Amino acid sequence: MAEMSRVLVIGGAGYIGKFIVKACAKSGHPTFVLETESTLSNPANAEIIKGFKSLGVNLVHGDIYDQKSLLSAIKQVDVVISTVGQAQLEDQDRIVAAIKAAGNIKRFLPSEFGDDVDRNDAVEPAKIGYAIKAKIRRLVEAEGIPYTFVASNSFGGFHLRTLAQPGATAPPRDKVVIFGDGNKKTVFNKEDDIGTYTIKAVDDPRTLNKILFIKPPANIYTMNELVSLWERKIGKTLERVYVPEEQVLKKIQEAVVPHSVILSLYHSIFVKGDQTNFEIEPSFGVEASKLYPDVKYMTVDQCLDQYV
Amino acid sequence: MAEMSRVLVIGGAGYIGKFIVKACAKSGHPTFVLETESTLSNPANAEIIKGFKSLGVNLVHGDIYDQKSLLSAIKQVDVVISTVGQAQLEDQDRIVAAIKAAGNIKRFLPSEFGDDVDRNDAVEPAKIGYAIKAKIRRLVEAEGIPYTFVASNSFGGFHLRTLAQPGATAPPRDKVVIFGDGNKKTVFNKEDDIGTYTIKAVDDPRTLNKILFIKPPANIYTMNELVSLWERKIGKTLERVYVPEEQVLKKIQEAVVPHSVILSLYHSIFVKGDQTNFEIEPSFGVEASKLYPDVKYMTVDQCLDQYV
Repeated sequence: MAEMSRVLVIGGAGYIGKFIVKACAKSGHPTFVLETESTLSNPANAEIIKGFKSLGVNLVHGDIYDQKSLLSAIKQVDVVISTVGQAQLEDQDRIVAAIKAAGNIKRFLPSEFGDDVDRNDAVEPAKIGYAIKAKIRRLVEAEGIPYTFVASNSFGGFHLRTLAQPGATAPPRDKVVIFGDGNKKTVFNKEDDIGTYTIKAVDDPRTLNKILFIKPPANIYTMNELVSLWERKIGKTLERVYVPEEQVLKKIQEAVVPHSVILSLYHSIFVKGDQTNFEIEPSFGVEASKLYPDVKYMTVDQCLDQYV
Repeated sequence: MAEMSRVLVIGGAGYIGKFIVKACAKSGHPTFVLETESTLSNPANAEIIKGFKSLGVNLVHGDIYDQKSLLSAIKQVDVVISTVGQAQLEDQDRIVAAIKAAGNIKRFLPSEFGDDVDRNDAVEPAKIGYAIKAKIRRLVEAEGIPYTFVASNSFGGFHLRTLAQPGATAPPRDKVVIFGDGNKKTVFNKEDDIGTYTIKAVDDPRTLNKILFIKPPANIYTMNELVSLWERKIGKTLERVYVPEEQVLKKIQEAVVPHSVILSLYHSIFVKGDQTNFEIEPSFGVEASKLYPDVKYMTVDQCLDQYV
C-alpha cells in the first residue's frame, strides 16, 4: 500500500480548518498545521489545539506573510490545503508563489469551502468576495499548480441550528423568515463531512484540476421543505414570512457591512438558488457523495433531530 | 471668503460614502466621486446616482486599481476621502501612493468610520479588520500625508431601528438580547450627521493629523438605558436576555464568517465598551460636537421616535 501523502493545512485553527485537520489526522495522513504563535497560544483556541495534539498533528509556527516559514512548511509535505480567513483570501498569492518555488506539491486546495465562485448570481457585497476567490482560482490555473477547488455549499452545523435565520441563536418555534419564495434548492452539509470528503479528494486522480461539489442527495432542500421537515419534528406549524427579492435587495442596499454581506449571501443561496442552478459537468466538476459512496454523511434530517 | 476646498470621495456610492457625498455637496464644496463604470451604471445604485447628480456632484469613472484614473482624479482636488468597502481597505496603499505622487493633497481621510482602530479590546475576527485599518493609519503617518481619521462609532440609522439586535428587521417588542451586562457606554450617530461632521473637519486646522471622534453627549447610551428609553416610548416592559462574555466568546468561536465578524464587533462595543473606555487626549484626538456646537445632530431619543 502506498504511503499516504503528507498534508499541510494553513489556517487550520479556523472555523472550517479544524474539521479538515481532524478528518485529515484521523484518516492517517501525516498532518501539519501552519498557524501563528499568537493563534496557537490564544486561550480561546486551547480546546482546538489540545484536540490537534491528541491526534498527533504537527503544529508549525508561521504564517503566509513570513515567506521563510511558509516555504519550509510547504517543502515538508505533498498537499497544501488553505483554510485562511476572509481577510487573507487575496493574500493567498503568497501561498501560490511559495508552492511554485518549492516545486514539490502534488495538490493545492485554496480556501473556498462555500458556493462555487464561478457559477452564481450574487450581488454586492457578496459578489466581490466571490471575485477574490475566483482571482485565486485563475492564478492557480495560470501557474499550472495541480488543484482541487472545494465547493462545500452551506455549513450545516452552523446554519441548521437556526434553520438559516440570520442572527438567531436557536431554531424558530413560532415564525420563520424565508428569503424569496422558498422554492430554490439549497445544500447543507455537516462540517465534519466536509472535512471527510475534502481529505478523500486530496490524493484522488478523479478530483485533479476539478471542483469537488459536496451535494449529497439527502442534503438538498428548499427552505419550504426544510421548514416542513422541522414542523413535523416539533409537531407545530410555523408562520412563514416571505421576503420577496425586491425587498431583499433593498435590505442589502440599506445594510452596513458585514450585515449586508450575510444578506447578499442569503440572496444568492435562497432567492437565486445559486447552489443548485447548474449541472455539474465532467469538464469542470465531480460530486463528492458519488465519488465516495462509502462515506456515511450526516443528513439534514438527522442533523435537525439534535435541535428538537 | 476663501474658496472651499475641492473634495474627492473614493467609493462614494457605498453605505457611508453616500451620506458623506451628500453632506459635502450640500455644504458647497466642489464634490467629486470616483466609482467604477459598473457601479455607476448598476440599476441598484440608480437612486443614489440620481441624488448625486441633482446635487451637482462630479462623477468620475475609475477605481483604485486603475492608477491613471486615480491619479488624475486626485490631481483635480484638495481633499481625498476614502469610503471604500471592506475588501479594498488594505488596497488603500494605492491611494496613499497616488497622493504622494500627486503632491497636491491637503488632507486625506482613509476609510474608517467606525470604532477607533488603535484603542479597542476586540477579539478575532474583528481584530484583524481593525489591524488592517491601523496598518493604513501607520502608512499615512509614515508618508507624512496630512490626515484626519474619523472614528464615527456606530451607525445609528442602521442599528437603532433594531435596537442593535443582529439579524432583526424591526425593533424588539417582547424580548431583547443584551451582550454583556448592558452597562457599557456605546455611541450611535445618524449617518447624515457623520457626513456633516466629516465634511466640517476637512478644512479645519484643529482636526489636522488627529482622530475626529463623533461622540455627541446625547448619543451615548448603555444598552440598559437604551432599552429603558425604548420601553418608555412603546409603553411596555421587555424581557431582557443577557449573554455573559464567556457565552459571547463561545458563540464567536462557533460561528462562521461573516456572522462571527458581527458577534466580535458586538463583543468589542457592548461587552468591552470599546467606544467609551478611554479619554480623548488632545495629543491624538478631538470630539466633533465640541468643535462644531452649531451642528444640530439627531439624538438617539429623536431617532427612536421614528420606530415606535
